[in-house]
Amino acid sequence: MKKIVVLVLMLLSVQVYAQKFKGLALTPPMGWNSWNKFACDVNEKVIRDCADAMVKSGLKDAGYKYIVIDDCWHGERDSLGFIQADPQRFPSGMKALADYIHSLGLKFGIYSDAGWKTCGGRPGSRGREYQDAYMYAKWGIDYLKYDWCNTEGLNAEGAYMTMRDALYAAGRPIVFSLCEWGNNDPWKWGKNVGHLWRTTGDIAVLFDGEEKHPGWSSWGVLQIIDMRQDIRQYAGPDHWNDPDMMEVGNGMSVNEDRAHFSMWCMQAAPLMAGNDLANMSKETLEILTNKEAIAVDQDTLGIQGFSYAMNDKVEIWFKPLQNDEWAVCFLNRNGEAKPVEFTWSEHKVIDSFANREADFTKTTYKIRDLWAKKDIGKTDKKLTTTLPGHDVLMFRLTPVK
Amino acid sequence: MKKIVVLVLMLLSVQVYAQKFKGLALTPPMGWNSWNKFACDVNEKVIRDCADAMVKSGLKDAGYKYIVIDDCWHGERDSLGFIQADPQRFPSGMKALADYIHSLGLKFGIYSDAGWKTCGGRPGSRGREYQDAYMYAKWGIDYLKYDWCNTEGLNAEGAYMTMRDALYAAGRPIVFSLCEWGNNDPWKWGKNVGHLWRTTGDIAVLFDGEEKHPGWSSWGVLQIIDMRQDIRQYAGPDHWNDPDMMEVGNGMSVNEDRAHFSMWCMQAAPLMAGNDLANMSKETLEILTNKEAIAVDQDTLGIQGFSYAMNDKVEIWFKPLQNDEWAVCFLNRNGEAKPVEFTWSEHKVIDSFANREADFTKTTYKIRDLWAKKDIGKTDKKLTTTLPGHDVLMFRLTPVK
Repeated sequence: MKKIVVLVLMLLSVQVYAQKFKGLALTPPMGWNSWNKFACDVNEKVIRDCADAMVKSGLKDAGYKYIVIDDCWHGERDSLGFIQADPQRFPSGMKALADYIHSLGLKFGIYSDAGWKTCGGRPGSRGREYQDAYMYAKWGIDYLKYDWCNTEGLNAEGAYMTMRDALYAAGRPIVFSLCEWGNNDPWKWGKNVGHLWRTTGDIAVLFDGEEKHPGWSSWGVLQIIDMRQDIRQYAGPDHWNDPDMMEVGNGMSVNEDRAHFSMWCMQAAPLMAGNDLANMSKETLEILTNKEAIAVDQDTLGIQGFSYAMNDKVEIWFKPLQNDEWAVCFLNRNGEAKPVEFTWSEHKVIDSFANREADFTKTTYKIRDLWAKKDIGKTDKKLTTTLPGHDVLMFRLTPVK
Repeated sequence: MKKIVVLVLMLLSVQVYAQKFKGLALTPPMGWNSWNKFACDVNEKVIRDCADAMVKSGLKDAGYKYIVIDDCWHGERDSLGFIQADPQRFPSGMKALADYIHSLGLKFGIYSDAGWKTCGGRPGSRGREYQDAYMYAKWGIDYLKYDWCNTEGLNAEGAYMTMRDALYAAGRPIVFSLCEWGNNDPWKWGKNVGHLWRTTGDIAVLFDGEEKHPGWSSWGVLQIIDMRQDIRQYAGPDHWNDPDMMEVGNGMSVNEDRAHFSMWCMQAAPLMAGNDLANMSKETLEILTNKEAIAVDQDTLGIQGFSYAMNDKVEIWFKPLQNDEWAVCFLNRNGEAKPVEFTWSEHKVIDSFANREADFTKTTYKIRDLWAKKDIGKTDKKLTTTLPGHDVLMFRLTPVK
């Protein structure tokens, strides 16, 4: 009888813990991750500096809150097998770093891997999931990015479920980010396992001689946008398609960064900045903190946008928003400027998945230009403009009553 | 540079540990397991009594050495997640029990499960593999039977690899017994993972009204023999097909027990007794300790026998042994006695997998009857006898020079 009571209590507590994980990502997570800029060169100064910068720059006010250390923070495991931070890179320890980040009103994320080693060769969590989740909870971790290197013989869904259950058991609410690269259709099972799942391989880091830089087309912004247009129905509040962290401010042109950011917002993508927050240009900051663009991403309907049409490689995306509003993005995929003409009143845009439509033949919408940050008229007039290469026009449309 | 040295030392030590696991089962493991008789009713007295009996009865002298506690020894995990024995059932603790078993010159085995719970609902090792292996090594465990219940989402090969690597890391040589029931063709990958793998579901426990008893046909001895006749090429020294633990002494007739034991020997099966060693009949003891039958099982060639012919449901099995000897077993699958006639000199038995042949048309063999324990002549004379129902004739054939 006592055993049954204990078992029931255990099952109840698992349910209580599972409940704690629900609702942690009702809109796509926003934050910063160390990888795209710092790769393995992470240490507590870099992280603190970026956390400070997130607050001072205004990123925090714009909605960013997770500071995530990616790979290579790990030291060795202790004699009982518990993971420790690298004592040279993180001499104050992870708990102190978490406390500092929390003191700024931010949340703290960390990285591990489902395999026996991380992608960077540090200790993986395979067979250690509960011990690692225990330490994360003890340190005060709020977000876990969980990678997929060195996973010989593992089944992805099962491996991610093991860590999910370990996080439940550890008892601290933690956003669980599945970094499985889309190899095993995580959109089909990820909703019951984590809050977001990568849909593709890493956003490009192209090697141009000695120089590495984020890419625009091959394994860059365009390729990622194009790869997974058939899985938007799997995304929604608390379970997001993740086209990878951002490369804004890491070497592309301002136009390209703006287009990249806009398209991530159109896709309801997690917005994880990947640049050096402590040393960013005014242009980068302006892109990352465009609150009207962010509002498109964070719209509480949580409907991922879709490609509506393409003409002369100028692509038009639509995204349904709350209150019958819509976001629209004209993306110039060409390297050179292109004229853009769009006669709204000839179009009836139907999102059959979300059961929504924007019927411009019957309804007129007010047009807000989200980058010019001004109202530019209504959809009863034809749009005529010129769009620079690798740039976007991004609008919010509000129906005129 | 220091890091590289550490990494190289780590990789070397994994190799050294892996090396410790090689050769632990050059012949099929022999021992006793609690499940078939005691199921979940295990405690330290039962285990000690059976260990004592293994020595006193002569089983130890006959080659049995592993005392394995199956499911239900588990208590709860401690606050750090380390598994503990059930304090009511094992008040002295596992280390003391291991010490006792070792003091008898025996080895100590334990049970866990790749899933989140064992088959009996106790804590499983999923996500806890390294912590569990650590405790097993600390207690002095020599053998692990690792079950496959509650493994939603897991891939078998990967899950067993995870525990294998955890055992390596724990550093104590442990025979690793994969109890995966043959669902995922473990014979195809088990050689690199463990020392033996189950090939079928559990040997039958049939419910006959209120009474449960081991079965002869359905899910019993015959069905298991018949199920996997196509996988003998995967077995050999240090990597064995495991048709499950034995039911000798658990309720079948003496004839059936003798046939069961003989067929396990013909299959080079692990010989894990499953009866109450402290309370066994003279007949059971005589079967389990038939050293000439055991020698067939333990032959160092490690070649699994095969079915050669069947006539009127009397089946003839052959097994190549060292020094051009052969074991032969006539198995009467009928419930009633059958006449047996076999004109040796008309047969040429070829084992194409092992590249061996017994050409009775050219070579004469001396015949040793392993149950009558006497020489009964040579293969130049026709065998003529009567075989009781569910019984065997088991011979060792030695070529006459």
